[in-house]
Amino acid sequence: MALALSLGRREQGACWPNPAVGCVIVSEGRIVGRGWTQQGGRPHAETVALAQAGAAARGAVAYVTLEPCAHHGKTPPCAEALIAAGVARVVSAIEDSDPRVAGKGFALLRDAGIEVTTGVLTDAAARDLAGFFLKTEQGRPWITLKMASSFDGRSATATGESKWITGSYARKLVHAMRARHDAVMVGAGTARADDPSLTVRDLGIARQPVRIVVSRYLDLPLMSQLARTARQVPVWLCHGPGVDPDRAKAWESTGAELIPCAVSGMQINGLDLVQQLGARGLTRVFCEGGSALAASLLAEDLVDELIGFTAGVAIGAEGVPAVGAMGVERLADAPRFRLIETENVGGDVLHRWGRA
Amino acid sequence: MALALSLGRREQGACWPNPAVGCVIVSEGRIVGRGWTQQGGRPHAETVALAQAGAAARGAVAYVTLEPCAHHGKTPPCAEALIAAGVARVVSAIEDSDPRVAGKGFALLRDAGIEVTTGVLTDAAARDLAGFFLKTEQGRPWITLKMASSFDGRSATATGESKWITGSYARKLVHAMRARHDAVMVGAGTARADDPSLTVRDLGIARQPVRIVVSRYLDLPLMSQLARTARQVPVWLCHGPGVDPDRAKAWESTGAELIPCAVSGMQINGLDLVQQLGARGLTRVFCEGGSALAASLLAEDLVDELIGFTAGVAIGAEGVPAVGAMGVERLADAPRFRLIETENVGGDVLHRWGRA
Repeated sequence: MALALSLGRREQGACWPNPAVGCVIVSEGRIVGRGWTQQGGRPHAETVALAQAGAAARGAVAYVTLEPCAHHGKTPPCAEALIAAGVARVVSAIEDSDPRVAGKGFALLRDAGIEVTTGVLTDAAARDLAGFFLKTEQGRPWITLKMASSFDGRSATATGESKWITGSYARKLVHAMRARHDAVMVGAGTARADDPSLTVRDLGIARQPVRIVVSRYLDLPLMSQLARTARQVPVWLCHGPGVDPDRAKAWESTGAELIPCAVSGMQINGLDLVQQLGARGLTRVFCEGGSALAASLLAEDLVDELIGFTAGVAIGAEGVPAVGAMGVERLADAPRFRLIETENVGGDVLHRWGRA
Repeated sequence: MALALSLGRREQGACWPNPAVGCVIVSEGRIVGRGWTQQGGRPHAETVALAQAGAAARGAVAYVTLEPCAHHGKTPPCAEALIAAGVARVVSAIEDSDPRVAGKGFALLRDAGIEVTTGVLTDAAARDLAGFFLKTEQGRPWITLKMASSFDGRSATATGESKWITGSYARKLVHAMRARHDAVMVGAGTARADDPSLTVRDLGIARQPVRIVVSRYLDLPLMSQLARTARQVPVWLCHGPGVDPDRAKAWESTGAELIPCAVSGMQINGLDLVQQLGARGLTRVFCEGGSALAASLLAEDLVDELIGFTAGVAIGAEGVPAVGAMGVERLADAPRFRLIETENVGGDVLHRWGRA
């Protein structure tokens, strides 16, 4: 199952809207098939592993990180494929919470006389598939919020200089983190200030994450890396009501997708924003700030994982705060996170936090 | 020598203005004497170890973390004591930079026919004795700046609430850190907001660090823990020129010591401040903020060690910044530090940084 889990992570970030599943088929103590959900979400892990196993699947044990699907979607159900291949036993890490599957996959297998064991390495599978479960159950993706800041919590100097606060190793890690998410998201301020490409570089990946910019008024420069490359790698622009129609048309003509969102006060409503992304199939979104977007996601309790890179540099209070105004008055009301790990990454501190 | 170094650290923070030295005397492969600089700085490590060794010191090897002193101060020189005891060999980690000693201690020993080896575990000794060397060479103590802050670099909410951002284990560690410094220092804002006692608690130490408050105008509440206890544990108030004479008199009557310092612009000049402290014999000062004092020490390049405690809580930009305005415009001009270690301390991130 540990092997199946690691196979499942291979296309994490590249197989949404489907879950990143892994499958290993073992016959007489020998691995005869390995599979994982492929780019774009198809074929499924079981299909790939069964194809590799061929006739050796008969009487074998199939280890699958998620309950095999039971419904006819764009592919026939994996539970039926396992039955047809004649496997004797299926070991699964966790039940699917998708109502089209939930328990039905296991029932199909059992009805066909296949022995089903579940609950193996469930916690690890639940972590890996958390984004998929969140989308299924709450209609929104897993949100990872990353912040690179100075020792004193500043993301840039007063004049906007932010290249480079953290070192090259930390920046490389950020690219690896982007690659494991379906989309990379920033606020309008960051898009204007940095003209970022938001792509994954130097890692040889084939499918880039979607690039999302959250901009209340869609006031983003058309002379930008994102606009120029919107036909190569998807750009989604989440905006509020009443934007200038010419601006909207100009952005549409670049190939970007416009996503209207509800507004709370002066800002895009965080919950509506993430639900819009969930409705479009995203399971894991990597948010890189800026301070206003980070503050709004934190204040609305929408951050599932917090990743900090802290550099040994002090910028002082005139600098740009990594997190904007949150309206927190009492410490007891401030969102709390639980430390998962801290590590020296090339001279910067990496700290990862989960929900408390 | 490693044992001598660990003995030397025993009264670190409690033997200023003298260096915290350790000494081990070995005769025929057996430890016959152990000593370290005692509280208040006397007797010296060698004196204690020689007294313990007695006649066994004759022909023995003395391991000393610092070159034995050669001058008649409040005690006779340790080099002479070692000669009188008849030790055959002295092994030392590092030469003293005090001009009254520098090389003269070794010369005295060699002239008496004692074999002298030096340069053993020099780096470790240099770290332990860094505060003493700084005082000797630059007339100022080692400055450790500690900051406890939220994930986003805030030391309190907008309403001033700061109890507790970090957890109990981090706070306990802070007390242990205070104990290893000669003095604990805060700015006036912190003294007013928190009414701190600045003592070391629950560690059973006998000699408390000096408590220092930096206050331009000496506008500190006399109804405070510091004022009430200034006769039990020293309170030093560093202030600028032209303070209200009644206020100064009232503070003097509590038993606090007033230290006039030069001013740069609106603030106490950092360099003059630390030199005043060095002139009074301090070798290691633990500064706990607030934001203005931290900013001024950082901007004036007076911070030798930076210790951060980062909690998994987000307060937002309305909160009090851990570091105040520093006047840094370009990132290249911002003070940089080198990461020494990072660790999970009871759910908070501890990160320690040294000079780059």
